[in-house]
Order: sequence, then C-alpha cells, then structure tokens
Amino acid sequence: MKHKYIYLNVAQKLANQIRNGVLKKGDRLPSIRGLCDEYDISMNTAKRVYIELESESLVISVPQSGYFVSSANYSDYPLPKASNPMLLADSDVPKDIINKVYSNIGSKNLTLFSINALYGEFLPTNQMKKEIGLAIKTLNNGGVDYESVQGSVNLRRMIASRSSTWGGNLTEEDIVTTNGSINAISLCLLALGRPGDTVAIESPCYPGIFQLAIDLGFKVLELPTDPVTGVKIDALREVLNEIDICLLISNYNTPLGSCMPTEHKKIVVELLAQHNIPLIEDDVYGDLNFNGKRPTCCKAFDTTGNVLWCSSISKTIAPGYRVGWVSAGKYQDKIIELKLIHSISSPPLLQEAVASFIKSGKYEKHLRELRRKLFANYQKILDIIINEFPQNTKVTRPEGGLSLWIEFDEKVNTIKLYDLCIKEGISIAPGRMFTVQKQFQNCIRISIGLPWSNDVEDKLKRIGVLSKKAF
Amino acid sequence: MKHKYIYLNVAQKLANQIRNGVLKKGDRLPSIRGLCDEYDISMNTAKRVYIELESESLVISVPQSGYFVSSANYSDYPLPKASNPMLLADSDVPKDIINKVYSNIGSKNLTLFSINALYGEFLPTNQMKKEIGLAIKTLNNGGVDYESVQGSVNLRRMIASRSSTWGGNLTEEDIVTTNGSINAISLCLLALGRPGDTVAIESPCYPGIFQLAIDLGFKVLELPTDPVTGVKIDALREVLNEIDICLLISNYNTPLGSCMPTEHKKIVVELLAQHNIPLIEDDVYGDLNFNGKRPTCCKAFDTTGNVLWCSSISKTIAPGYRVGWVSAGKYQDKIIELKLIHSISSPPLLQEAVASFIKSGKYEKHLRELRRKLFANYQKILDIIINEFPQNTKVTRPEGGLSLWIEFDEKVNTIKLYDLCIKEGISIAPGRMFTVQKQFQNCIRISIGLPWSNDVEDKLKRIGVLSKKAF
Repeated sequence: MKHKYIYLNVAQKLANQIRNGVLKKGDRLPSIRGLCDEYDISMNTAKRVYIELESESLVISVPQSGYFVSSANYSDYPLPKASNPMLLADSDVPKDIINKVYSNIGSKNLTLFSINALYGEFLPTNQMKKEIGLAIKTLNNGGVDYESVQGSVNLRRMIASRSSTWGGNLTEEDIVTTNGSINAISLCLLALGRPGDTVAIESPCYPGIFQLAIDLGFKVLELPTDPVTGVKIDALREVLNEIDICLLISNYNTPLGSCMPTEHKKIVVELLAQHNIPLIEDDVYGDLNFNGKRPTCCKAFDTTGNVLWCSSISKTIAPGYRVGWVSAGKYQDKIIELKLIHSISSPPLLQEAVASFIKSGKYEKHLRELRRKLFANYQKILDIIINEFPQNTKVTRPEGGLSLWIEFDEKVNTIKLYDLCIKEGISIAPGRMFTVQKQFQNCIRISIGLPWSNDVEDKLKRIGVLSKKAF
Repeated sequence: MKHKYIYLNVAQKLANQIRNGVLKKGDRLPSIRGLCDEYDISMNTAKRVYIELESESLVISVPQSGYFVSSANYSDYPLPKASNPMLLADSDVPKDIINKVYSNIGSKNLTLFSINALYGEFLPTNQMKKEIGLAIKTLNNGGVDYESVQGSVNLRRMIASRSSTWGGNLTEEDIVTTNGSINAISLCLLALGRPGDTVAIESPCYPGIFQLAIDLGFKVLELPTDPVTGVKIDALREVLNEIDICLLISNYNTPLGSCMPTEHKKIVVELLAQHNIPLIEDDVYGDLNFNGKRPTCCKAFDTTGNVLWCSSISKTIAPGYRVGWVSAGKYQDKIIELKLIHSISSPPLLQEAVASFIKSGKYEKHLRELRRKLFANYQKILDIIINEFPQNTKVTRPEGGLSLWIEFDEKVNTIKLYDLCIKEGISIAPGRMFTVQKQFQNCIRISIGLPWSNDVEDKLKRIGVLSKKAF
C-alpha cells in the first residue's frame, strides 16, 4: 500500500526491513541526516519517519547515540506446531473451564488476558459517546421503536461500502444486522443444518463456536490447522464427504492468529461450492491487520451464494454494543426469517451510532491508530514472552488480530496454571478451552487487547514464572 | 386499590359503575354540585373527577347540558367463542402470512394495526432520550465494554424490586437480562428441552412462540383457550402425560387478551410442578392493566423453581431497545450458560437507561398515564367495531394489554381481507397467523397501540367495510 505521505512510505520500507529480519534487533539505523540523503527527504520528514517507527515500537532513540532497531523479528524463534486433532472423536466440551473463564468478563479486579477484547484507550469511547448523543437526535423517535428485521439501512450501507476493502462487492440489500457476530453465526447454523449434521471447524477453535454448534445438536469435526496459514486444505479435502457445514475464522483467527492466504481462500470456496457445503466465514478480526494490507475474505471469491460472511464491530469499536451482521448469499431470506423468530429486530440506536462513526471517516482513522497501537502492544508482549518465559516456550507471530497462542513445555498443565494465576489477579485462557478433544493442555491464549501498563507487564511476567510451577 | 387522592377514588367508583353496566351509555351523571353533595367533596375535587373520567373516555361533557356516560359497557355484545383446537394435528406453520405481515414492521406508509407495539405519544420517547444521555455519562466507559453475562445489576435490581407489584419476591440474583422477551423464551426452550419434545401453548397463540418452538425442533400442542380466563385447565390436565414444557402468556395475552384468574394460576403452577413440567410464563403485557389492579403472575406461586418468568420493556417503554429478562428458578445456571453461548452479553447502555428510568419513579408515572390513555384508545376502537362493523362481528373485551381479537362472520376470509386492506395502506393480522392448525380464518387481531387520529379512525372503519368483500 502506497501512503499519501512520504514519511509514511519511508517508515513502511524500514518497518518491512525490520519485520523481514533484514534489520535485526539492536542494529543501528541511519542518523536523521543519513536518512535525508538516502531517501532524498527533508529533515522534518526524516524526523517524522522515526517518530512513526518509535510509535510502532520498532525503533528506539538512544540519547547521544542515535536510532536502533528495538524489536527483534524473532523469525528463528520456534512456532507452535500445527494441530493434529483426531478425525473422529467424541465431543468433550470443557464446560467447567469455559464457564469459569468467561465468568471473569466485566471483572474489575482481574487483569484479563483471557478475554479477546479491546480495553481502555484502544476503544474510541469518547467518540462513540458523541455518536450516541447524535443518534438520539437524528434517529426517528430516538430509537425507541422496532426497527425493520433486516436492520439499520444506514449501517448496512456502510458495511457494503467497506466491503471493497477486502475484495467484496456487496450492496446494502445483501446484509442483515445481528446482535454481534456470534448471534450471526447462531442464525447461520440454524439456517443451514439440523441436529446430527457435522460442522467442520478449526483446531484449536474459539469455544463460542463449538459450544454453539454442539448446543444446537450438531457434531463438530476439528480440522488440522497451521498457526500461520490456517486450516489445512488437504485435511479438509479428505473429509468433504463427512461434513455438512464448514465454519472458519479466515483472518487472524482466535486463538491461533492464523490468516488464510488468498490462494487458500479461493481453493476452499471452490471446493466447498463443488460439494454443496456452505461456508460460514467469521471475519471479526479482519480489520485488525498490523501491516498496511487488509486481508481478503473467502466471500470475495463466492460466485454461488454459498459463503455466509459474518462480522461485527466488537473487536474494533464497542464489544458492549452487540452490533454484528451477516451477508448470507442464497440463505439470506432464511436468515431474516430466523432473526425475526429469535429476536424480532436489533436496537436501532447502537447501529445508527456505528453507521455514523463509519460514515464520518472516523472509523478509518481510528483503525489506522488502533493497528499501530495494537502492533506496538503485541511487540512488547512478544518481547516478554520470548525473553522471559521458560526457554522451550513457543509462541505464534500473527500479522493481526488479538490473540497470541503460547505453547509451554509438554509437562505444563495450563488448567493448574489458570488456578495459580487467578490467585494473583490474572485471568488466562487455558488451551483445553479451545477444543472438544484432549489436546492443548500445555497451551494458553493471551489477548493483546489490554493496553500496556506496569500492571500488564508485571502480570504477564508472572504468567511465565508461574508456568514453572504448573505441573 | 385505594388512591391517595380523593378525586381518583371517586372517579374510580364511577368508572366501575360504568364498566359494570350500572351506568349505561347516555346516562346523565350528577352535576358538579350534585357530586359535591353526594360524596362530600369540594367543587374543585368534583371538577377533577370529571376531568379524570373524560380523559379515560368514560364520560363526555355536553355544553349547557351536563355530564353523560360516553361509553357503553357492551356486556351484552357477544364474545368470540373459546377455541377448540385438535389435540393431535400436524403443525402447519403459516409462514407466508407471518412473513408478509412482519415485513411491515417499521413501514412508514402503512397504518399498522397488525403490530402489537406502542407508537407515538404512548412511548416515553423524550424521557428515554434523556436517560440515554445520562447513561452515557454514568456508565463505565459509556457502555462500549462487554457487560457481565447475567446483565446490568442496576436493571436486575429494579426488576426485582418491582416484582412485589405482582406478588413476587425476587432478588437481583434471580434475574438474567436478555435481548427482549422472545430471546428470553428462546433461551428457556433451549435450556428445557430437546428436539422432539412437546410444548403446550395457548390457541390462538402469538406466532413468535410456535415458530420459535417448531424451528428448534419441538412439537407444539395447542390448548383450548377462553377469551376471558385463558387456557382451559381441564384441557391442560388431560394432556399432562403428553407434554414436556408448558408456555403461557398469563396476563392479557396476545391475540385473545385473556388474563388467567389468580386461582387458575395457582392450580396450573401446582399441577405442572407435580408432573415436573416446567412452565415458561411470558408476562410482557402484565403491566398494561386498564384498571387499578396489576394482575399476579404464576411465578408468584412457584415454590419449586419450576416457573421461568419472562418479560421485557418492549410493550411499555421501548420495543427498539430489545431489553428483556427471565427469572428462571432452578434453570438459571443453564440460562446464563446459554446466553453466553448465543450472544455473549447484552448492550449495557440500553439496560442502564431503563434501570434509571424505573429508579427515578418516572416509569410508574408513565405507566399510570399509559394505562389511562390505552384504555381510552381501546374504548374508541371498541365503539367503532361494535357500532360500525358488520352485525354478526364478535370482539374480545380485555382488561389490559394491546390486543383485540375480532371474529367475523364465518364466511369472511381474513387472508383476503389482509390483501384488500394492504391496498389501502392498512396492515392487519389475519387469525390464521396465530395457529398451526386450520382455524381462525374469519378472525383478525387488532393492536390498540396506535394513538387515536383521524387516519386511525378512518382506516379502522375501512376494515369493517372491506370485511364485507372478503369472501
């Protein structure tokens, strides 16, 4: 992506060199004057390049010495291995752990590494307060009336217009709003299948997804998943005759953080269409790319109406608003019917506030800042995990999203680690939460959505220390 | 109920005489001075008595002549007969009609007699705008964060404190908030049963309920229902061995408007508890009593945790907020787990605004006014149906709620009537919508939630005229 501002273009070149490992941690960077000569830019522009890179935590300025690469790219550091779940296994949903961890939502006394949400300065709280104030005035009757079942037309228009950012070409008519993304997925499952059907999911997988599927009477089949490229296409190919629905978090999924390459997306969409297996695509993290490129969606390659693209603003604007949506292709009428049956309609006030925030251009501005801040946060968290956690710890290196997946030594029991952590006011998400099989007992998911602070730093380090006692 | 104000006590006495038929339409009432003597009250108080009765449309003042009873009590006018559905019937959900009627929600070009909601001046729109503005400020982070799964503690506290109005004794811990009442019912059905189970419902029944049940794989069994006293207890007794769940709208249900007498509620609760059949009680209309007495709930007689009491503010404050709740007795943990699975949590902002509205005392004040206004509206609508609709039309006389159930001559086909009406900008709800059996083809439901206007009056009269052509 080419930026309008010269300083951003230069900053991106340097950032890429750091991320690719061309420039390594501790490397000295050109002086301001050196940068002017090298890129033929002014002193002011050169200064802004380093301010930008510092804000992304990629560069530190050492007084009297100059600029240095602050963050290693850690490309040599080991990644967790791709998962290898059993093809046929009785589902054993770890309800106790899931309920225990989610009961921490909203707690004021815990440092919530366990909840995959943004907190504090990462959320545009004050801006949204203004948008709500505005929406009360502009909305017919201040939003007390029932809204049409399909949802706010202003919001649907904005979602449609933004679909070009991921290669889509939607219109407002293609979208139905929902109470968050999980509600969209719930409607999709109800629309597509019936009890006894089998849903293929990633492994590890966001527990909300398999709990929902199993609760509705579906069987789930966990697919081998790579921490970088997502679901293994060959594995999917092998089970095509055994599954009725496929459900994937295509971009920066949780907990792995993997992002399906565009080529994989194309293949998966074609494969599933050929076999008449609908694909539910959950894209809630798609806007949270750390680098300049917003990834594509499977929906962009959907020529048959077979992909049901679900998303929300819970991971970018306001989890508490419960504003999500689905573009359900050929299943749209059924989705509208089900939305009516299960909840009649959605609150217009919150949708209107979100629509206006997007329309004003403030959402894109917020996203640009959020991506930078999140990436800086991620770097700091990664630094501590790599440098201070026990030596044979492995960790993912996602290019966006909110999750880090940490694999401890095989002997570590992260359910015990959860108990040790909670005593110190720290909430983590044990790996066992993310599967219906007996696996990932030595893994945890860490959210990067808590803004950096001394408390976050201290508590994060404590997880590493406590992991040595969790056997 | 004894009022604090003398004029309200006197007004109520006169109102009761009018409603009981002691005073009949056209009867002359005492003069102001006559009233002073009769009740030993001041001139000012006597004047306020008549202002009150006029505001309820029970009395009209004829200049130079005095005060007269304006509304007949119509006790001789025939009621629709109690329903008599088949015990075992294949469910035939009239999807096309239901979808057609509900697609009118939010339409600006139609007069919506079909939607059971309050409109315009009946809703406390301006007050709620202020409450939202306040909630943005008082709520932590203006409501952008995830809320605890159980829901706003302030709202739960208010619901619990108001439970004394219907004989309940709930605490905030007994309540889980939901996205409207239908979402509460959806969670209850998911918690209580599994596909194949049978749910007993009223007949006719709110279509949202049987659609939901059937969509989740349940069978529904329609019970004979009386337009005054609700579900027939003897009929329920006969099917106790065939049903797994019972679901009733106990107070001013829709479409019939029936209200179960307290004694019936007690019997039903005991009967179902003995047979270990959970009762889902939908009480969304309970606060909309036209007279002084708010009816009890089945939940008030629940000693075993077997009653799941569901309600919302959709019929009193703001349908568009989607704020509802359930007090689920012994099933509460399961409900919390399911809420997490299906929607994570609810929007805190809207719940907080409602909680504050109730806490300030403005809700009770609003209810008092709303009850009066609704009753006046009901009287006007009833007058037209009785005096201007074809002669052998029957109509319910509910003591609260939002619905009138009209039974036309047997030859009238109300699906055809719907089509005739819609061409003239009128939306009605055909009787077939409210059953999964072949019945009620000559019935319609009319909502009284549209404030009186020339348009409402004209369109209502047109329904009567058009019914003569709908064969």
